Amino acid sequence: MKNRVITISREFGSGGRTIGRKVAERLGIPCYDSELIQEMEKQTGFAADYVKEAGEYAPGGFFSSALSTRMFGPTNEDILWSHQYKVITALAEKGPCVIVGRCADYILQDKADCLKVFIHADMKFRAERIVKEYGERDQSPEERLKDKDKRRAAYHRFYTDMKWGHAQNYHITLDSGALGIDKCVDILVPLF
Amino acid sequence: MKNRVITISREFGSGGRTIGRKVAERLGIPCYDSELIQEMEKQTGFAADYVKEAGEYAPGGFFSSALSTRMFGPTNEDILWSHQYKVITALAEKGPCVIVGRCADYILQDKADCLKVFIHADMKFRAERIVKEYGERDQSPEERLKDKDKRRAAYHRFYTDMKWGHAQNYHITLDSGALGIDKCVDILVPLF
Repeated sequence: MKNRVITISREFGSGGRTIGRKVAERLGIPCYDSELIQEMEKQTGFAADYVKEAGEYAPGGFFSSALSTRMFGPTNEDILWSHQYKVITALAEKGPCVIVGRCADYILQDKADCLKVFIHADMKFRAERIVKEYGERDQSPEERLKDKDKRRAAYHRFYTDMKWGHAQNYHITLDSGALGIDKCVDILVPLF
Repeated sequence: MKNRVITISREFGSGGRTIGRKVAERLGIPCYDSELIQEMEKQTGFAADYVKEAGEYAPGGFFSSALSTRMFGPTNEDILWSHQYKVITALAEKGPCVIVGRCADYILQDKADCLKVFIHADMKFRAERIVKEYGERDQSPEERLKDKDKRRAAYHRFYTDMKWGHAQNYHITLDSGALGIDKCVDILVPLF
């Protein structure tokens, strides 16, 4: 029997990470998120900030075409992707756990008994949350969210060929803004 | 306070209608589906079979362009849509209920306190279910499902401008094949 793993994909600011942590806490199993990033950092030699950004988002601005350019062999993103692949597979083999983000749903599709979850919320809920959680920036919270959403979807599409946010890719999707963070946790815990 | 209504959109064969009925039964509230069709039939004068088909699916084959052709004024589909709109609004005003399909999520978006649900399942689960439920046909169950899915999505897009099956349109989406019909009911009942 393969280990049971909950993978949580989420829109930026939707509280998916908080939900993942609370679910893991209630179930008494580990939740991998920043821990995972640190683990990968050690293995790849990339800086933590770079891993955090490039392991989940397509590059923006001038480098936005980087994902589709392979003229000069594998890019840094490709190398990071292959490390990410190995780390996530190893974590799932270690034991039951919650893994937030980083295309774990795709990576583990044949390797673990996954409950695939997607968390989303409307712009208003997420804008308020990111200002509270990460503070104000020059860019408006709405612009930050649009940019993050776009790049996360592009990254997911490029490496997984799955439509990010499409209900059919997940066992359950939840609107954390409408249902509330704690209600989402209550729904997920008995499904493990 | 607006009435609380559960709207269930679903892929053909996913068991969304069964889930709707079971949820309504557990909550002691009405579930509108074939009852709704009959109600509309009375009001429109259209035959029941036509209402059932044209109130949810884009026309196929030779008439597939009918939805986008408005040269000769409103089509039968448009007239049916406006009746559907009135009937669903009236049902939601009458009291708490479950409404399965027929774009009720869109119609009621400002008129009721809706829990918007989408039920889906993989091809294998749905193919087995439709053969069991509706019997064999000349067309393979997979072809029947693909045709139904395509036309239901086209109908939804035309009248609602919403992407059918996109997680962001719903408060909760459930894979009835992976989770099981009864588990879906268990998840939904406490959310009412």
